[in-house]
Amino acid sequence: MAQSVLPRSVQKLIDEFARLPGIGPKSASRLTFYLLRATDNQALDLSAALHELKERTQLCSVCFNITEDDPCPICDDDARDAGLLCVVEEPLDVLAIERSRAFNGRYHVLHGAISPVEGIGPEDLRLAELLQRVAAGSFREIIMATNPTLEGESTALYLQRRLTDHKVRLTRLARGLSVGGDLEYTDEITLGRAFEGRQDV
Amino acid sequence: MAQSVLPRSVQKLIDEFARLPGIGPKSASRLTFYLLRATDNQALDLSAALHELKERTQLCSVCFNITEDDPCPICDDDARDAGLLCVVEEPLDVLAIERSRAFNGRYHVLHGAISPVEGIGPEDLRLAELLQRVAAGSFREIIMATNPTLEGESTALYLQRRLTDHKVRLTRLARGLSVGGDLEYTDEITLGRAFEGRQDV
Repeated sequence: MAQSVLPRSVQKLIDEFARLPGIGPKSASRLTFYLLRATDNQALDLSAALHELKERTQLCSVCFNITEDDPCPICDDDARDAGLLCVVEEPLDVLAIERSRAFNGRYHVLHGAISPVEGIGPEDLRLAELLQRVAAGSFREIIMATNPTLEGESTALYLQRRLTDHKVRLTRLARGLSVGGDLEYTDEITLGRAFEGRQDV
Repeated sequence: MAQSVLPRSVQKLIDEFARLPGIGPKSASRLTFYLLRATDNQALDLSAALHELKERTQLCSVCFNITEDDPCPICDDDARDAGLLCVVEEPLDVLAIERSRAFNGRYHVLHGAISPVEGIGPEDLRLAELLQRVAAGSFREIIMATNPTLEGESTALYLQRRLTDHKVRLTRLARGLSVGGDLEYTDEITLGRAFEGRQDV
């Protein structure tokens, strides 16, 4: 048997790598044997980084983004517009938006989207906390930057209904052609949205 | 800046993942944020497995395969043919051959192949140890199972020259069509080898 040939600790690491998304058994073997071969302390460095990830990070008690300090640097930054709130599904979305440099307000991370299929309801997300933040009343605009998917749209719609009584402007990110994309290969729904949202030049 | 938004421990893990072969910056982010979301101890399990990999494994002092015990279970298995030696480049090759169940002898892991381009010479491999094992005289056949690449062929040729004085049968794995493969898509060199090695039915 191949299993009995592999030392237990090697098989264990292969199994752990294979549990990660997008890494199959073959890649897991390759990564493990690569680390066995690596002459420096790469395996131990990775081990320490994983350990510190769980040790040092927490959720910001204001926006629920991942952070080492509470409140997080964004919530704590007075130079950012405290009247603008961008609602996203995941911490990775914050990262993407920050990379774009298109936004200089505050965030709220829901940690998911409403999905009846997967059994995720409003109570499973950081929605109550969001409604509390909005009720506190310092925002003039809330940008609902959930994903342009069925789940993201449902979440935005739910939010819209819950926030309709508040005197706050509700917006959604524009849908349209990708910059650098090809009209010929753009899907019909996106193309439809691009027509709806057409702008004067 | 996007960098300043990410907590240091998160950025550190992304960087460590991105150092692994076949994992780019985007996959590294995805893996890191997946582990941040994972509710159980998956990050700590992976951390521990990486730590144990380096702690518990060593090279077998006989065949230089990776092992927790020295000598390794294969070298220590009296049920295996001690007269047959299979020479491979890497520990992963042992695994692949064991999976095939086509071989029941002993192994010798060179830990690489001769490659003038990469500056890898015979002295960088476990070749001296192999020559010592062969000189000890208990093998009747040595199967040179280095890869069918320029480097693997060079290594086999080098071995062949160094072992020509020993009374031992030297063999090389057959080259030919892949089982389940398509003749139309087989490269010309492999097809040529398949003709040369054709067998009576």
